[in-house]
Amino acid sequence: MSKPSIPKGTRDFGPRAMARRQWIFATIREVFKRHGFLPVETPSFENLQTLTGKYGEEGDKLIFRILNNGDYLSKADPSILASKDTKALTPTICKKALRYDLTVPFARFVVMNRNELTFPFRRYQIQPVWRGDRPGKGRYQEFTQCDADIIGSTSTLCEFDLVQIVSEALTSLGIPGYTILINDRRILAAVASSMGVTPERLTDWTVAVDKYDKVGIEGVVKELEVRGFDKKVENGIEKLFEINSASTSDEVLSLLEKMIASDEQGLIGLAEMKKLLYRSANDGIIEPNIRFDAMLARGLDYYTGAIFEVRVENSPVGSICGGGRYDDLTGIFGWSGMSGVGISFGADRIEDVLEYLDIFPKNIDLTTDVLVTYMDEDNCDLELQIVTQLRNDGFAVEMYPEAVKLKKQMKYAGDRSIPYVILIGEEERSTGKVTLKNMDDGSQTLVDPLQISSFLS
Amino acid sequence: MSKPSIPKGTRDFGPRAMARRQWIFATIREVFKRHGFLPVETPSFENLQTLTGKYGEEGDKLIFRILNNGDYLSKADPSILASKDTKALTPTICKKALRYDLTVPFARFVVMNRNELTFPFRRYQIQPVWRGDRPGKGRYQEFTQCDADIIGSTSTLCEFDLVQIVSEALTSLGIPGYTILINDRRILAAVASSMGVTPERLTDWTVAVDKYDKVGIEGVVKELEVRGFDKKVENGIEKLFEINSASTSDEVLSLLEKMIASDEQGLIGLAEMKKLLYRSANDGIIEPNIRFDAMLARGLDYYTGAIFEVRVENSPVGSICGGGRYDDLTGIFGWSGMSGVGISFGADRIEDVLEYLDIFPKNIDLTTDVLVTYMDEDNCDLELQIVTQLRNDGFAVEMYPEAVKLKKQMKYAGDRSIPYVILIGEEERSTGKVTLKNMDDGSQTLVDPLQISSFLS
Repeated sequence: MSKPSIPKGTRDFGPRAMARRQWIFATIREVFKRHGFLPVETPSFENLQTLTGKYGEEGDKLIFRILNNGDYLSKADPSILASKDTKALTPTICKKALRYDLTVPFARFVVMNRNELTFPFRRYQIQPVWRGDRPGKGRYQEFTQCDADIIGSTSTLCEFDLVQIVSEALTSLGIPGYTILINDRRILAAVASSMGVTPERLTDWTVAVDKYDKVGIEGVVKELEVRGFDKKVENGIEKLFEINSASTSDEVLSLLEKMIASDEQGLIGLAEMKKLLYRSANDGIIEPNIRFDAMLARGLDYYTGAIFEVRVENSPVGSICGGGRYDDLTGIFGWSGMSGVGISFGADRIEDVLEYLDIFPKNIDLTTDVLVTYMDEDNCDLELQIVTQLRNDGFAVEMYPEAVKLKKQMKYAGDRSIPYVILIGEEERSTGKVTLKNMDDGSQTLVDPLQISSFLS
Repeated sequence: MSKPSIPKGTRDFGPRAMARRQWIFATIREVFKRHGFLPVETPSFENLQTLTGKYGEEGDKLIFRILNNGDYLSKADPSILASKDTKALTPTICKKALRYDLTVPFARFVVMNRNELTFPFRRYQIQPVWRGDRPGKGRYQEFTQCDADIIGSTSTLCEFDLVQIVSEALTSLGIPGYTILINDRRILAAVASSMGVTPERLTDWTVAVDKYDKVGIEGVVKELEVRGFDKKVENGIEKLFEINSASTSDEVLSLLEKMIASDEQGLIGLAEMKKLLYRSANDGIIEPNIRFDAMLARGLDYYTGAIFEVRVENSPVGSICGGGRYDDLTGIFGWSGMSGVGISFGADRIEDVLEYLDIFPKNIDLTTDVLVTYMDEDNCDLELQIVTQLRNDGFAVEMYPEAVKLKKQMKYAGDRSIPYVILIGEEERSTGKVTLKNMDDGSQTLVDPLQISSFLS
């Protein structure tokens, strides 16, 4: 047997990482719950056709497909096999694929369960997703998303709810220097239109603008040139960049208002952004923790209204949270007209940020509270009794499983950072007391077995 | 787009099911923690060779394999394709496979992380596993296992720890009429030997005995006949069955002692079973909640010492928990001599049992504590302020997102079983009070906005 390994882009989580991850999930879940969101989980694999065609051509390539069990080749077309036509063969040998995100399965869930749900429906979902991306910094093939969506309402109160959730979660997680960037696809469309971009070329334009974060304004201008946009668009982007550099979100919005003056949808978007900023400010969420960003585009995602993205200053990873509104979330599964808005936290990137900044709370590491040592395999009824009693009192307690030398048992307690050890030697047994050793300061106290709990901090 | 569906053997979990499942997981996790077990998680997919050959021929067929991304056929052998040799093709187009259980990945984890772990190492792991089984009652293609293992000690205190865990968890879950069946593979081997079964035929014999649960004693005798065992073995099984019918575990053990008198390993097994029963009784775990079962075999699993299985009276599903000791858990990954013992709860079957017996606690359903209604989109600062304040006080609070008719908002609160609604009409606004409506009894109270929390039960 060769040395065991795990697939690239995946990770094992030992006790220390688990303690941190459980804390992250619990913190986010708590915020979701406080906002009245209800939990949902969907299967790890979906029917292949549920997922294909939903994530763009690039996304489709990254979906992990599950090979049919049994003799999957028996019905395969010999000519497809002979020509090695991978694309044609796949749907004939794979019926299932791993979840790629939580949004598409949620849309499918809503359509399938619409009669049992009360709308507007607020759901949260915390589950792993899988993508065949090239692994890299902050990019894994298995990672966990924490999503919250509200479906069945077009009210901007929903957007506000999500901004509050992001702010509360990141505050509870202790993440410093975060900014919730907001924009609206209708504003982007109006801005593009003001530069002469036709509706057919809007996606192309958006994809170029979306690169700003990575390539800067010169890069975006070059990208627009490559994509065949004219000088007017290039100048327009430079102007947009200038507007976006104004010192406050309010100023940026005022300047934009002039730029897109006659575009009705754009103005609605502007008004909603203003309302969102006003309500956020009333709730104590102000710049730089929130900021209107006229250059925020969120790539190819099929948002139609508000969009969000969260970045963290001095952090090694990109966005740790993103989302937005889509007018027709469930339309892809045959139920039209349900508007939804949602956000998704990348738990693994949040873990990476907290790790990088070394700001995990100190008290979340898990350990056992008490180790009960054990000298004689045939005479340990009292030890076992104490173990049960302390567990009933709510403590995490272990008995060292073997009657080995005390030194070895104490070393185990030390290695595991167990704060208290109970020792019962001959003398203790004769006096009916036990020794409680504090591993921090080394102090030892003789205590009545029934009163141990009161000595544990 | 055709009507959406999910793969057979998988399930969506809506808010009600999630509340129940979260409660089951939390209950089991709490017991694991109280016993000093630490959490570990492994990737959902492993390298194919980590899993194949570990679960027997039948198990291998049920492993879900993940198709390589990209042009996986390009390097496939044309002659294999032409002959449609599924078995030969699979390893060339699949490098990864989904987790089939938690034990093999844990063994791999221990070997890969041995330098960072303190032994004996107690780990728990709660994660889904996937098997291409034919779906049926209590049998899913995706289900969640809750495992606890202790690795690095041969002490029977470990077995006792696990018996306590099972008993505490099932008691906390409120499962009535459960029995922890225990046996020891060394006793089984000694019993088989006493009937003249040779070591080479032991597995064959064990598989036949394992069917007792499903086919009864006549079925086992028939099965032994089919497998070519002679009359002496058939008579032996009938005698074993008779011994096993004695009224107490102690009696069964005494009778067995005579049957296997000269088998050293068998006698060690018997002594350990007695010790386990003695310690359990001291801890209040007595028949019928625990019972020595001389016919318990646990099929093909590669246990070498104690084995456990939990059955529930009047329940629609088979075993809800099982486990045992294996002398060499990590040997398959090149690190020999680490004895381990573990148990695995089937969370989905526990859910099925609780559902079938209709004994889920009533208070675990999740809902929002307070709905704040909302009349005027442009004048709801007070409402939003109250929402934030109540959330800060720890309540789950929603604001109905749209300024629709009050009747519709109240209906939403009713449908969602939200116990309290806050109403702020013209009158309330002028007096600076708000109306708190108790949805249970319909009573309404005028309260100061700052004091609402004190009125919520």
